[in-house]
Amino acid sequence: MTDSPWHRRSRRVAYENRWLTVWHDEVTRPDGRAGIYGVVHFANLAVGVVALDADGRVVLVGQHRYTLDAWSWEIPEGGVPLDEDPVAGAARELREETGVTAATWHELGRLHLSNSVTDEAGILYLATNLTRGQAAPEETEALEIRWVPFAEALAMTLDGRITDSLSVVALQRVALARVAAGRETAGCQAARVDRVATEHRRHEG
Amino acid sequence: MTDSPWHRRSRRVAYENRWLTVWHDEVTRPDGRAGIYGVVHFANLAVGVVALDADGRVVLVGQHRYTLDAWSWEIPEGGVPLDEDPVAGAARELREETGVTAATWHELGRLHLSNSVTDEAGILYLATNLTRGQAAPEETEALEIRWVPFAEALAMTLDGRITDSLSVVALQRVALARVAAGRETAGCQAARVDRVATEHRRHEG
Repeated sequence: MTDSPWHRRSRRVAYENRWLTVWHDEVTRPDGRAGIYGVVHFANLAVGVVALDADGRVVLVGQHRYTLDAWSWEIPEGGVPLDEDPVAGAARELREETGVTAATWHELGRLHLSNSVTDEAGILYLATNLTRGQAAPEETEALEIRWVPFAEALAMTLDGRITDSLSVVALQRVALARVAAGRETAGCQAARVDRVATEHRRHEG
Repeated sequence: MTDSPWHRRSRRVAYENRWLTVWHDEVTRPDGRAGIYGVVHFANLAVGVVALDADGRVVLVGQHRYTLDAWSWEIPEGGVPLDEDPVAGAARELREETGVTAATWHELGRLHLSNSVTDEAGILYLATNLTRGQAAPEETEALEIRWVPFAEALAMTLDGRITDSLSVVALQRVALARVAAGRETAGCQAARVDRVATEHRRHEG
């Protein structure tokens, strides 16, 4: 660890809404010269949940992402205020978006999503021992729900059908944990992922 | 795929610098009510490179990230203008940050890093058949370079020493590909990752 080679000379709020603040900073750069840095500060922590049922299926949430103007299949995700317990927030997002509650929660890891410009942090969970109920999405959300075999969800991260970084990291991490636990032999998992991806390409083509 | 359930009623530029534009949009939300959306539009495509040498080691780049005010170990990364060939940009970033050139490039996948607020996209590569040379980092960069065994880099993504999303996805994807190719048996890889992580915790404690 080193002290910061950056020095902040001034900061002003360039833009602000309920979800983010954009700071325009005047800085001295590591090479000693003057520069500027625009920082996007997030009000919420991002959480994402791989909810895995007893049949080995995971729930995916589809929505049209305004930022990309494109449809996106993802694991259940949401923003959790920084003063809320992250796992409680993740449980709330899972329940609201899919109606699912989970008895067992396991943290998969923590990420910084886009650290060249933002300070957005994310925490990922594996949720098991599921009970299904009624979804109650927020009024801004127009969501579709799909349950898919875990191997298909993993294949979707590999062939570009899932591109959301939180979803990709979470599903790949569960896959690595399953390999490590010996629940899947390498050949078995590879063959299954290849088969699912091939079938998808056949259907698309 | 569906048409967008969002309707944009107005857009103004709220902030702009060389790397990003922040749009403040007035929208009609999926539920038909009026709302706002702040979108962070990126000028560059993010690229990241797992550069793997003949001894099975990968190069990591360490730097103090201004956005987080914290040190971060990552794969070599950079921003590539949208009109530049991404693999050429990735090769340039790898060469500038580490001095390494690679004869073989393989795309590992594409991501959207933070799609609730930004349109930032990333492309990840595996680079092999490496030649080492002299690094020439940009003047804003104060970088450290480390070569580590692949298993240790993977362990760093699992135990929180690497949190950058592009780095995590890329290293985990190479790990899954190695499992699928049968180069590592599941038990072998799990044991190696566990050993590296345990040794790290012993050194830290």
